[in-house]
Amino acid sequence: MAELFLVVAILLLAAKLLGALSVRLGFPSVLGEILAGVALSASFLNLLGWPFLHGPNALSPGMMESILRALSELGVLFLMFLAGLETDLEKMAKVGWAAFWAAAGGVAFPFFSGAVLGLWAGYGLPVSAFIGALLTATSVSITAQTLLELKQLQSKEGMAILGAAVIDDVMGVLALSLVVATVLKPEAGGAASILKTLALMTLYFAAAIGLGRRFFEPLLKKVSQARSTQITMTAALAVCLIYSWSAEAVGQVAGITGAYLAGVLFSRTSFREDLTERVGIFAYSFFVPIFLAHVGLQVRVESLGSAAAFTTLLLLIAILGKIVGCGLGAYAMRFTPAESLRVGVGMISRGEVGLIIASYGLSRGVIDETIFSQMALVVIVTTLVTPIGLRFVFPSKGLTKPI
Amino acid sequence: MAELFLVVAILLLAAKLLGALSVRLGFPSVLGEILAGVALSASFLNLLGWPFLHGPNALSPGMMESILRALSELGVLFLMFLAGLETDLEKMAKVGWAAFWAAAGGVAFPFFSGAVLGLWAGYGLPVSAFIGALLTATSVSITAQTLLELKQLQSKEGMAILGAAVIDDVMGVLALSLVVATVLKPEAGGAASILKTLALMTLYFAAAIGLGRRFFEPLLKKVSQARSTQITMTAALAVCLIYSWSAEAVGQVAGITGAYLAGVLFSRTSFREDLTERVGIFAYSFFVPIFLAHVGLQVRVESLGSAAAFTTLLLLIAILGKIVGCGLGAYAMRFTPAESLRVGVGMISRGEVGLIIASYGLSRGVIDETIFSQMALVVIVTTLVTPIGLRFVFPSKGLTKPI
Repeated sequence: MAELFLVVAILLLAAKLLGALSVRLGFPSVLGEILAGVALSASFLNLLGWPFLHGPNALSPGMMESILRALSELGVLFLMFLAGLETDLEKMAKVGWAAFWAAAGGVAFPFFSGAVLGLWAGYGLPVSAFIGALLTATSVSITAQTLLELKQLQSKEGMAILGAAVIDDVMGVLALSLVVATVLKPEAGGAASILKTLALMTLYFAAAIGLGRRFFEPLLKKVSQARSTQITMTAALAVCLIYSWSAEAVGQVAGITGAYLAGVLFSRTSFREDLTERVGIFAYSFFVPIFLAHVGLQVRVESLGSAAAFTTLLLLIAILGKIVGCGLGAYAMRFTPAESLRVGVGMISRGEVGLIIASYGLSRGVIDETIFSQMALVVIVTTLVTPIGLRFVFPSKGLTKPI
Repeated sequence: MAELFLVVAILLLAAKLLGALSVRLGFPSVLGEILAGVALSASFLNLLGWPFLHGPNALSPGMMESILRALSELGVLFLMFLAGLETDLEKMAKVGWAAFWAAAGGVAFPFFSGAVLGLWAGYGLPVSAFIGALLTATSVSITAQTLLELKQLQSKEGMAILGAAVIDDVMGVLALSLVVATVLKPEAGGAASILKTLALMTLYFAAAIGLGRRFFEPLLKKVSQARSTQITMTAALAVCLIYSWSAEAVGQVAGITGAYLAGVLFSRTSFREDLTERVGIFAYSFFVPIFLAHVGLQVRVESLGSAAAFTTLLLLIAILGKIVGCGLGAYAMRFTPAESLRVGVGMISRGEVGLIIASYGLSRGVIDETIFSQMALVVIVTTLVTPIGLRFVFPSKGLTKPI
């Protein structure tokens, strides 16, 4: 297993090195950290193919990939947990309706534009509706990290983006359930399955919020009296992991939504500052750079060349659909044009949620390999576009915190 | 992959809970954390067999096990890195010869007693010599963690134990090479292969120490000026991982020896205190409890009942061989009887190194399944005996640091 240590060390060093370079060039560190992964996965470096990593006792490539993915998924949870800890609920409540309508616009626009694009390209209604659903899911982790760096997470727009991302997650799941129930599998008793999804979501959010508000403060108070090193941190991290697991297993929403929720609930306790500092050390020194480099590692640069008319349109809809949809939603709630643009740009990034839905469609024969790889391209491009875009639409208060 | 989050959360909570209970009962936290894993693996709980962890999209049991093993191996590296950071080289230098002779006695006694036991039980010379070699390898991580807790790591005996563990690792590898070259495979050109092992070890230690002394301080100074969050920690962790990898890949010694060495070298820099604090947060909140619980998770309580005469003798030799051998070595270098006993007890723990050698022997047909599972029993029992024993032979300055 020693070769794992080397691979992790190389990912860490490359991510931080290109991250620092990125900051020096005036971009967020996130961009460089992702590009470090892209460079290491490109065919001329191809880290995971290095021959001396494949001795007789070495991990199989599949095992290595699974372990890196596990570290990376833990990383994105801790990142969203941190974003939750740094969330100011009072500020977020003030922009609640803007967040709601931004999310609604950001689901509606890409959904309908995507479906229309599918029909135009000659796909039937079920497949077209599924393409639309694919384009709805925002993945806010890259945005959250960029905003933390730009010290804009607690700005009006930052709070609106994070609020909208949670609502978007819920709406996206409902949109997908709706597509599955009405167009893809109407025979499976559509209405009942949508009601079941809604009931599970309600149960999850009610239980998670209720338990958090009632028990997090006394739990940490009690735990912090135990004579065990770092036990308060351990308790908080374990709760974050349980909230993430139950978000998926019970609430039908993404694990990162659960991690974010746990962070928000801990931010209401008297341990907020202490946890923020310690989780920051924990996350930024190890898990977050691995997560970001791993995002880049999954990019196949070779596949980026195959952009035909359909792919180009899909990309445009993916990007403009969020900017226009979310932006209009925020604008309708009296955000200025500049603020609305910022919210829209912050919601561009897609990430793994879109890919998970696409795999679902691929494995059930709803979409084919072509659409799947086009969707992968959308994830890659939106992920890289987001930190660059945010850098230009937000005023910079100075990049990155010093150590 | 969400089920991984749940399993990790349960391991973390169980480990810290039983750890705190253990402290309350007057034992080191380590003991409770290992027992948490033992309880979770026992057939009536059997964590990894829980049916709802095995849905259609869930990780396979093999993948889950590999990921937990990876987290656990990272944990033991960070633990030894921390022990290195808290090592006082001046104090260790003063007990250098005691450490050397303790290590020598702790290799010679178990080796010869084990070989004699093998011959007595009717095995041939090659197998008996291999049984002897199996019993030599100390795994000092459990001891290091216990001594950190007892605030005894920097004591005279603590320094002697850590020094002896490194020397023991080198001697153990040489003893095994010697057995392979002279008794098991004399046809493979024995002398040349021993010389090659010696040369690689020398190269590794010379390069690792030379590079560390020369470059760690300027490296961290330079890195800490970059505008990137926690980049100094990342650099230190990456170096720890590279030292661990190269310890195995180049130096033929255990990865934890490399991690410890990296820690010792960083302890000579001006970043010592800062790194110790941050690595402590990082390690104790997450990786170390996972490592300790995972040690326990691998225990099959059911297998503990099968102790026949041979197994009992093997266990006695494993425990007494170290106490007597290491103790005499230290005593010869003018340690008091009480101090010598402490050094001997600290060296009892075997851990994964013994199992790795046993797997090597099993896969090449040198030993059979019976000896292999007896060796696994030795690892389990010595691992549990060590923290209990240390608790009684060391004066307690108060257990565990507060958070």
